[in-house]
Amino acid sequence: MLKRLYQPPLALLTDLYQLTMAYGYWKLGRANQQAVFHLFFRKPPFKGGYAVTAGLQQAIDYLEAYRFDDSDVTYLAELTGNDGQPLFEKAFLDELRDLKLTVDVDAMPEGTVSFGQEPMLRVKGPILQCQLLETPLLNMINFQTLIATKASRIRAAAGDEPVLEFGLRRAQGIDGAISASRAAYIGGCAATSNVLAGKLFGIPVKGTHAHSWVMSFDSELESFEKYAEVMPNNCVFLVDTYDTLDGVRQACQVGKQLRRRGQEMVGIRLDSGDLAYLSIEARKILDEEGFPNATIVASNDLDEHIMESLKNQGAKIAVWGVGTKLATAFDQPALGGVYKLAAMQREDGSWQPKVKLSEQAIKTSIPGMLQVRRYQTGQGLIGDMIYDETRGIDPREIIVDSKDTTRRKRLAEHTESFDLLTPTMRDGVRVSEIEPLEAIRARALEQLQLVHPTIRRFMNPHEYPVGLDIGLHEVRNRMIHDIRGSQLDD
Amino acid sequence: MLKRLYQPPLALLTDLYQLTMAYGYWKLGRANQQAVFHLFFRKPPFKGGYAVTAGLQQAIDYLEAYRFDDSDVTYLAELTGNDGQPLFEKAFLDELRDLKLTVDVDAMPEGTVSFGQEPMLRVKGPILQCQLLETPLLNMINFQTLIATKASRIRAAAGDEPVLEFGLRRAQGIDGAISASRAAYIGGCAATSNVLAGKLFGIPVKGTHAHSWVMSFDSELESFEKYAEVMPNNCVFLVDTYDTLDGVRQACQVGKQLRRRGQEMVGIRLDSGDLAYLSIEARKILDEEGFPNATIVASNDLDEHIMESLKNQGAKIAVWGVGTKLATAFDQPALGGVYKLAAMQREDGSWQPKVKLSEQAIKTSIPGMLQVRRYQTGQGLIGDMIYDETRGIDPREIIVDSKDTTRRKRLAEHTESFDLLTPTMRDGVRVSEIEPLEAIRARALEQLQLVHPTIRRFMNPHEYPVGLDIGLHEVRNRMIHDIRGSQLDD
Repeated sequence: MLKRLYQPPLALLTDLYQLTMAYGYWKLGRANQQAVFHLFFRKPPFKGGYAVTAGLQQAIDYLEAYRFDDSDVTYLAELTGNDGQPLFEKAFLDELRDLKLTVDVDAMPEGTVSFGQEPMLRVKGPILQCQLLETPLLNMINFQTLIATKASRIRAAAGDEPVLEFGLRRAQGIDGAISASRAAYIGGCAATSNVLAGKLFGIPVKGTHAHSWVMSFDSELESFEKYAEVMPNNCVFLVDTYDTLDGVRQACQVGKQLRRRGQEMVGIRLDSGDLAYLSIEARKILDEEGFPNATIVASNDLDEHIMESLKNQGAKIAVWGVGTKLATAFDQPALGGVYKLAAMQREDGSWQPKVKLSEQAIKTSIPGMLQVRRYQTGQGLIGDMIYDETRGIDPREIIVDSKDTTRRKRLAEHTESFDLLTPTMRDGVRVSEIEPLEAIRARALEQLQLVHPTIRRFMNPHEYPVGLDIGLHEVRNRMIHDIRGSQLDD
Repeated sequence: MLKRLYQPPLALLTDLYQLTMAYGYWKLGRANQQAVFHLFFRKPPFKGGYAVTAGLQQAIDYLEAYRFDDSDVTYLAELTGNDGQPLFEKAFLDELRDLKLTVDVDAMPEGTVSFGQEPMLRVKGPILQCQLLETPLLNMINFQTLIATKASRIRAAAGDEPVLEFGLRRAQGIDGAISASRAAYIGGCAATSNVLAGKLFGIPVKGTHAHSWVMSFDSELESFEKYAEVMPNNCVFLVDTYDTLDGVRQACQVGKQLRRRGQEMVGIRLDSGDLAYLSIEARKILDEEGFPNATIVASNDLDEHIMESLKNQGAKIAVWGVGTKLATAFDQPALGGVYKLAAMQREDGSWQPKVKLSEQAIKTSIPGMLQVRRYQTGQGLIGDMIYDETRGIDPREIIVDSKDTTRRKRLAEHTESFDLLTPTMRDGVRVSEIEPLEAIRARALEQLQLVHPTIRRFMNPHEYPVGLDIGLHEVRNRMIHDIRGSQLDD
């Protein structure tokens, strides 16, 4: 999709410091030293208990098209430091122009349910390349995972009723909208209003008319009649331009005309006012007038919390149109995903794990070449173990909570287990199949069903067990102790 | 910029209902009936008192490149209604493929300080075209205006100290980041980390190194020494990988080595922990070690409120790196801009104003072919009048608050006044000059200086006087009364 939307190349879509570091590695002759970076978030968004991963396909599209062109190099050659001299040597820029990615990428397939601290994506390769890719990978995966997660919550609030994504007009830029439509579909939306997203991804598109249609006629009734005349097979009348319940009555009048012509009104849409009250009253009118199957679509600043409240009030809403709060993830518009160096290869080919400390335990990184093993039964997910592939899993099969190391869990026997990071690129070439969007969406829905309902709860969810393999935990502890100890010795 | 980033055409970047309405107008023979739509927000974002407009250039780029191609038309031909029949007739789709925009656009130049209810942009033309453009125009102008406004607030908190925009990794998609970088620069940021935005728009770019650079060496000291060796003219050392104040001391050690080689360390960067405490202590160390001119850059979840608090605590921060909270407008990630039909041309060529009612007074629209006149003296802005160009300004020169019509203000004599909406497109062709980004940024800074400080205040700002020309107010009141009255008669 990236290639159909953007003009490549996009290699400059990165932070300047990635290029200055890349230059540094190159200058020191270390550009090809092998490194491992992990992309992960620390806490699920929206104070929730999980995330739904998304954005991988665009990320891989990006990597496949990765290159610097002449104009990129010319631009970089003009950048200067505090002495007015160029930042970059020409030989380095020539190298960039010739750069072909050779990284290996392992990643959770899109639509995987994921949890805090777990790598969603692992990049292994020359440190120069890994570094340059940090920012664009974070940009794409942070945002799409955020929106897929938000959509899954909104879908949960809607229960079996379809959710339509209407966010384009308030989204953050053009592909803030387009990739939100895709991610929202992965998270469980049924359709979008965004026609370009429909065309690019095959997502169903929905829409009928706006207030301006009604206002452009001399009366609301006339506007409905004319709409029914020109598009009799797509009649959802927006009834709140002047007076909502009057509007519903007029819709019924036109619905009867339609019926006499052998067509059926699909329903009405409410876009303002008290949606609980108006939907209940509108339902009564529709039923009384002989339209028990007419759908009530509601929109206007909805999110999972408002939808839950409307349901509790007995609102008669059958289709939910959700825009701004979904497409911008309004209550938390960014996932705090990070991308951290975790290992470097020594000259003898062995791997040296790397750790970054922090005064906050949750910000201390996890060293190694990490993999995530998920344990589950047919009934549901049991727990996830983060382990170092170069060490393998400790035979004790115990996970240790990385934030509170006194919390430990032995993962039950008689469960199945499998690794979540799967080979996606090898030596810069895509090795995984491009999955149909429907398959990704189905994976998300299926996996969510395996997550205990208390973990899916919107507020103060139960915490899903994710921990470090006890062997990895012990190695990490020693590393932290060594660094802190050496500081005390200073 | 749009053409350099995206693959046109992007005409499908709209809500489906714009196309179904367009089809309706066409089918009824009304496609070319002239209409006027206004794009405006009701309340400034962030509970603030103003907005800084941005996004116009991209919007005009979009309009200039507007077209449907064969694949768009093929896609639309496949869409069906509830009876499985096509939504659109082929003759309509052929018309779309041949469509050339003929709209007139009048708009506030980018960087204009604007207020609630005022049209920022007016589109006049065939109703079919006006309707199709609603969604993309809102998408671009809502977001960029939001970010320019956020940036202006963050800049105000920084005072004379530069603000660097670091948002790319957490932004909402690729151009969520790129257009945020541009809008943030308009709002007053000094530079961005986003290299592609730097290349596309000529925005200064900044960056040095990350934690991964430090971690990739055996010690922090070695990592600083090596950085200074390879990029001596761009040394801002990130000091918090292991222990922050230790890091500052090591930066000083390397700063002295640099100085012996005739170069100067630019400064240090703090990216975690208590920025007030750490910046004060770091400043002491830097001063003691002979680096009174070394800059302290701080980043880590900053916004205008945290920056204000840090300043109040005497934090010694000289450069502010602001990422997520700026590029996503974290505390209000969408501007609620709308695009409303306000007039339609009658067969005799005269204009019929149109109004949409609402139970909330602020949502009742303003009819007419609107223009905004700004009254100001050399000292500052006095007030803005929304008037109908087809009626002209009432000689009383009184504005009436549209939300509370008892609030009226006679705009002082001896002030200068001018219209804010300026001709931007005529008959589908750009007639305004493409302004350099620096000129737009300068306009915003200059206009903000003319806004009373109490209106620029972050919390509970004083309200800037914006009202309807009293003649327009009276017309509108009669229209509302007529509609409400006729409902009572039913």
